[in-house]
Amino acid sequence: MKATIITIGDEILIGQIVDTNSVSIARHLNAAGIVVHEKVSIGDDSAQIVGCVERALGQSDIAIITGGLGPTKDDITKKTLAEMFGSELIPNQTVSDHVKRMLEERGIEFNDLNRGQALVPACCTVLFNAHGTAPGMWFERGGKVVVSLPGVPYEMEHLMQDEVMPRLKAHFELRQIVHRTMITAGLPESMLAKAIEAWENALPPYLKLAYLPNPGAVRLRLSAYEVEGESVSKEIERQFEALRRIIPHNIIGYETATMQELIHQLLTERRQTLATAESCTGGTIAARFTAMPGASAYFLCGVVSYSNASKQAVLGVDPDTIARYGAVSEQVARQMAEGARRISGADYAVSTTGIAGPAGGTAEKPVGTVWIAVAGPRRTVALLKQCGSDRGQIIDRAGAFALGLLRDELNGK
Amino acid sequence: MKATIITIGDEILIGQIVDTNSVSIARHLNAAGIVVHEKVSIGDDSAQIVGCVERALGQSDIAIITGGLGPTKDDITKKTLAEMFGSELIPNQTVSDHVKRMLEERGIEFNDLNRGQALVPACCTVLFNAHGTAPGMWFERGGKVVVSLPGVPYEMEHLMQDEVMPRLKAHFELRQIVHRTMITAGLPESMLAKAIEAWENALPPYLKLAYLPNPGAVRLRLSAYEVEGESVSKEIERQFEALRRIIPHNIIGYETATMQELIHQLLTERRQTLATAESCTGGTIAARFTAMPGASAYFLCGVVSYSNASKQAVLGVDPDTIARYGAVSEQVARQMAEGARRISGADYAVSTTGIAGPAGGTAEKPVGTVWIAVAGPRRTVALLKQCGSDRGQIIDRAGAFALGLLRDELNGK
Repeated sequence: MKATIITIGDEILIGQIVDTNSVSIARHLNAAGIVVHEKVSIGDDSAQIVGCVERALGQSDIAIITGGLGPTKDDITKKTLAEMFGSELIPNQTVSDHVKRMLEERGIEFNDLNRGQALVPACCTVLFNAHGTAPGMWFERGGKVVVSLPGVPYEMEHLMQDEVMPRLKAHFELRQIVHRTMITAGLPESMLAKAIEAWENALPPYLKLAYLPNPGAVRLRLSAYEVEGESVSKEIERQFEALRRIIPHNIIGYETATMQELIHQLLTERRQTLATAESCTGGTIAARFTAMPGASAYFLCGVVSYSNASKQAVLGVDPDTIARYGAVSEQVARQMAEGARRISGADYAVSTTGIAGPAGGTAEKPVGTVWIAVAGPRRTVALLKQCGSDRGQIIDRAGAFALGLLRDELNGK
Repeated sequence: MKATIITIGDEILIGQIVDTNSVSIARHLNAAGIVVHEKVSIGDDSAQIVGCVERALGQSDIAIITGGLGPTKDDITKKTLAEMFGSELIPNQTVSDHVKRMLEERGIEFNDLNRGQALVPACCTVLFNAHGTAPGMWFERGGKVVVSLPGVPYEMEHLMQDEVMPRLKAHFELRQIVHRTMITAGLPESMLAKAIEAWENALPPYLKLAYLPNPGAVRLRLSAYEVEGESVSKEIERQFEALRRIIPHNIIGYETATMQELIHQLLTERRQTLATAESCTGGTIAARFTAMPGASAYFLCGVVSYSNASKQAVLGVDPDTIARYGAVSEQVARQMAEGARRISGADYAVSTTGIAGPAGGTAEKPVGTVWIAVAGPRRTVALLKQCGSDRGQIIDRAGAFALGLLRDELNGK
């Protein structure tokens, strides 16, 4: 079963927003065994919408559309789909009552624009949007399905999960898609490919291998489309087992597991705790952990000690050390980690201090220079890393290296 | 002049990555007056790539392709384009020398896969990739242009800026695209649309209005495509002036200016300083500021006081207050902000304490309950906000409300 995802909105074509809706929709479809054939983004243009939906129905069985359902004049998706399906717009009492109630709760008057939101094409099945004012719509033609969803991410997400996926599973006979990802580190892409060349060449033809390079890691993904899930999962497990024998020291995890997820799991299982002391990473390491539900079980305290005074006052870094070695130094990184561990009472603390740029670099310590330290129950370790030249890149990489060092210490390496 | 953006990679279609490349490319093209007609994402499939590029050339003048240029077998874009343009792959000495040098610096051996990266279609112009091993390629057919770029974001970004844009500007006679965005707050989309209906209806036909709702704000964008830039910019300024008279109290800024950018500017101009004390937002407020170059001029210190003990030990929150009112309370929010201000010596401090969920909610304080406080030279203010039900959404919204309160205090509201 194939699907095309269509996102509508001029804001996508001018680069004003990042389209995350199609990512979420793609995951839902893949998880149910539906192959995403193509993703398309187009403007709020009637002719283009019709052309795109017709093409989607030509090449696939399902078209999932988001966007263009707001109450204002620039939103034309509903009218366009009604015309395309030769159906008139009629009032829907359920939607109308719901919109009225939603607006009432927020103290907003119900006007003729809102009344317009309660009009739906006569031929469609209305998908109730509990979280917003624009309903989803389900159209069918010759066994194929067109779904139109609002572009507000969490409204779309709830509709996909609660309305669209159950209906697609009931409407179509679906097979399975299996994706499994192994995360490797320590071998650049081309060396990794040479190391596993014989293994890759001997893969069964229904398994597709992809290399996904990341800063510091290369992910290997095996995919099988529209298969019997169970036997294929077993075969992938066998292939990964063979791979573990070829590159035993280069495997750091599986699936999309991030380093913070691995550490989250380790700390939770061991009932150990964590603190952070960040300078150049500016709170992003703390934010990576605290984004995960359950972080409060182990994450005690983070300090973003941007100024030298706060390194001293909050973390107890020795002013003489800063004067002698500079704020970006092994000594300061160590004292920051140890200070964070001390003030929080955590088992482990990780610190970063570096030059994120664009200003502040010197010949000796150019932009991108970052010292990282981890203080634990046994010892404190520190590491010097060059993290690139772009501010965002430096913050990301320094965070990734810091998490890597923390994981190594947790594993007693 | 019209362009189609094509991103290639199965990882996009299965939702394994978010495509940010096309956002960046769209911005570059728009800034130069090139209209992005469509964005398409397809898999690493030869027939699909050819079909998609041919269709792009049918509907537009330019096709910008990213992805599929790596050294491994799953990357087939280069071979496919060579076949499509009826050109053979030949070795390129400059690319070969560059790849060898790059690998040498990183201590990696040059193997036959890397040798493959130095092969380019005979008919293309090579775009030198200083930051990676896969060169960009520029093809021409009947005056139209096809560009192929690597998918690694910062390699793509440098090539777009340094190679592709100058060449497009030289190759085509380009007109201008003008986008101007006004950011409003306080009126929901449908009420805003009613308030400015007469103004909207009287807009000149070449100005396109878009409503972009956000949590807490609605952006109004006026766009004009392929026009004489200067006179249109003046007309947009006149229209915005008229709008300022209609909704004088609802305009909070212009363009994509974020709240943290506005505060960054205010603090920098006034030479005032800032500290943060975050619980439920987990470091994301500190990270918003420290992501911006120049933040070190005013950002002194952030504390992520996740545990009650750290609220007491680091920020000096009174344990009795926590026991009496709970960690999520007006009193604790105020003491957190005041504590951060005190320990850092900053002029202003902003704090958050709330229940990000999914666990921890009660009938009295459900998930999404957040107390926000700002301590300044004159006073401390606090605000209670309901920030939704999803952890990520709660963290985002609480951060947005906290910045809003901080800006109001900075403006003496």
